[in-house]
Amino acid sequence: MKIQLSPISVALLALFFTLQVQAQENFPFGQNREIISPEIHADNSVTFRLTAPTANNVSVTGDFLAPGEEANMIKDADGVWSYTTHPLPSELYTYAFNVDGLQMNDPNNVYYRRDVASTLNVLLVGNGQADLYKVNSVPHGTVTKRWYQSPGNNMTRRITIYTPPGYEKSDNSYPVLYLLHGMGGDEEAWMTLGRASQIADNLIAQGKAEPMIIVMPNGNVAQEAAPGESSLGFYKPQFRLPHTMDGKYEETFHEIIRFVDSQYRTIPEKAGRAIAGLSMGGFHTLHISRYYPNTFDYMGLFSAAIMPDEKIKSKVYDSIEETLVTQKNNGYTLYWIAIGKEDFLYQANIDFRKKLDTMDFPYIYRESEGGHTWRNWRIYLSEFLPILFKTR
Amino acid sequence: MKIQLSPISVALLALFFTLQVQAQENFPFGQNREIISPEIHADNSVTFRLTAPTANNVSVTGDFLAPGEEANMIKDADGVWSYTTHPLPSELYTYAFNVDGLQMNDPNNVYYRRDVASTLNVLLVGNGQADLYKVNSVPHGTVTKRWYQSPGNNMTRRITIYTPPGYEKSDNSYPVLYLLHGMGGDEEAWMTLGRASQIADNLIAQGKAEPMIIVMPNGNVAQEAAPGESSLGFYKPQFRLPHTMDGKYEETFHEIIRFVDSQYRTIPEKAGRAIAGLSMGGFHTLHISRYYPNTFDYMGLFSAAIMPDEKIKSKVYDSIEETLVTQKNNGYTLYWIAIGKEDFLYQANIDFRKKLDTMDFPYIYRESEGGHTWRNWRIYLSEFLPILFKTR
Repeated sequence: MKIQLSPISVALLALFFTLQVQAQENFPFGQNREIISPEIHADNSVTFRLTAPTANNVSVTGDFLAPGEEANMIKDADGVWSYTTHPLPSELYTYAFNVDGLQMNDPNNVYYRRDVASTLNVLLVGNGQADLYKVNSVPHGTVTKRWYQSPGNNMTRRITIYTPPGYEKSDNSYPVLYLLHGMGGDEEAWMTLGRASQIADNLIAQGKAEPMIIVMPNGNVAQEAAPGESSLGFYKPQFRLPHTMDGKYEETFHEIIRFVDSQYRTIPEKAGRAIAGLSMGGFHTLHISRYYPNTFDYMGLFSAAIMPDEKIKSKVYDSIEETLVTQKNNGYTLYWIAIGKEDFLYQANIDFRKKLDTMDFPYIYRESEGGHTWRNWRIYLSEFLPILFKTR
Repeated sequence: MKIQLSPISVALLALFFTLQVQAQENFPFGQNREIISPEIHADNSVTFRLTAPTANNVSVTGDFLAPGEEANMIKDADGVWSYTTHPLPSELYTYAFNVDGLQMNDPNNVYYRRDVASTLNVLLVGNGQADLYKVNSVPHGTVTKRWYQSPGNNMTRRITIYTPPGYEKSDNSYPVLYLLHGMGGDEEAWMTLGRASQIADNLIAQGKAEPMIIVMPNGNVAQEAAPGESSLGFYKPQFRLPHTMDGKYEETFHEIIRFVDSQYRTIPEKAGRAIAGLSMGGFHTLHISRYYPNTFDYMGLFSAAIMPDEKIKSKVYDSIEETLVTQKNNGYTLYWIAIGKEDFLYQANIDFRKKLDTMDFPYIYRESEGGHTWRNWRIYLSEFLPILFKTR
């Protein structure tokens, strides 16, 4: 195999003009020619490029294509393969290359998102919905990773907390949204895949959302923290973990509320609390909000799983209907159920709404296109934040 | 090309047992067989694996090998290539695969670090120095990403702040280390490549370092924030940026100190302040500490660049020697200079020490093996933290 200096290494050699250089740890091979990939054009079309002179077939796949679809790339005289899309709708996309049957990331794109055990490049196409997912020139909130005591789980656990722009400079108290991830996720998911802090910054700056604290806990009570952030080290993440949907999270959720109310200037009452989550986090939202039936004024179920596995024994799931009735009788401002038409949980949500209808349990229903995707969950968050805490 | 379901997708299908699934956005191709890579054995040897049935040559490279060296991998009957190292010294390594001449990351390892414009997999081998780089079962500090006003640069700028375990629960005031990155780095570098919060957590837990606040600003005053974290979006990072070593950072550094002293329970005096940095950050440390010659009691120059480019005109560099004399006369506790024998800045540091010697300017000199690498900067930080703030 031919050993080549990367352009960074070449640049380094050229840069010893005085003394001021921080070398990166050099790697022996890289690109022949400096290329840009992805390149987003003015009309929202995107060109992907990969230098692979000896490859026979290169294609690109990603969620800008239909599921399972790949787009063939064409090689030029320099061995650079490329493909240009049609103009794309504004979105935060993920993609990868297929080089002679082998999936690989784009070495020219340093922006990645991990989703459970796979890591894919991301690409943001603006001029539409995804402008909410950008870091724009607006005041930014503060994002903190810290650890709280969970005696109920006998561990210290990591948590992500967003405080809105101006929090540090004011003496105001703020309402709190507890925002929960899905299966395979953790306290990083809503920040990295969900763009929660960008969505909040942008909607607050536009005057569309109230300034609020957003608390993103880890819903896998068997783990202290996201993969790589605990004493388990750099292990391979798994989709399923023990004790994610067995009542233990719901049972110990009051620890999180107590921590947040003790550490931040919150409005420590029902009118100042919302809870929402996607998939498993929607399940947690459903069950936490009725298990603590006078605690939250706003509920958001995004593509929610609904009922626990019948084999699970937990006091949390002993009296689902009774606690829903209690929750209803205690009153609340908003119960928001959102799901895509193609979601595999669609029928379960229909059944759940029927159940709620028979109970005269008020809710707002939002049906979208698409399925069980972060694309939808970002949209739901973008729609949910503006309807929170407006009645104060 | 053959389209294959990834194991995650297959797992998904099997998991619809009740309703509880958060699908990741599925990708059409992936691994044939579930493999672990890298696998770290009890004796600190490491096996790398890659499924690539149609590839002709696969090798692995990384900083566990000599620069430029690659280790050939061997294919088994399942098309899985593998290579096992000798037992490795404890270290945080980076590596990549070379598949028929094309560099690619390890699809079975979700742990990455970006260094300027390249993103490589990481691997931590313990039982030695790198135990300091692990998240261990010790009390953890809090890591905050927030934004401060920089009127001198006419922008709002992102900054990373570590507060030590117990900060939130105590009323104590804490000393502050300002920890500066090198060229091509940003406010993320010391956290991701430098493992600063892990090193601090571990040394504080061992009683070897005083609890302290660590402030990691962005030293590129032409940018608001790290790549991907500003309104510039997901652009391709560059090694060199304007205004990194032209005096502008030094000139406006008081804004950072003022911000930190106003927002945190600091010891807002010389005895409570240290400053250190690597390469360009060592340069900044040298020049900031003499430009504000009575502000810091502890200086750390890690593989420092020394003198500005002669073409640069800035009041900051007008009277280097005079301000060094003032700094010396004002007194300080520690001026620590560390560099590796193979560093391209080695001679510049020899010359600088000669200059300091002629001035009777006290300093401690630490010479290490190796060169201009994060491996050394993590070691220097591990040695520097324990000698800070001991005289209070």
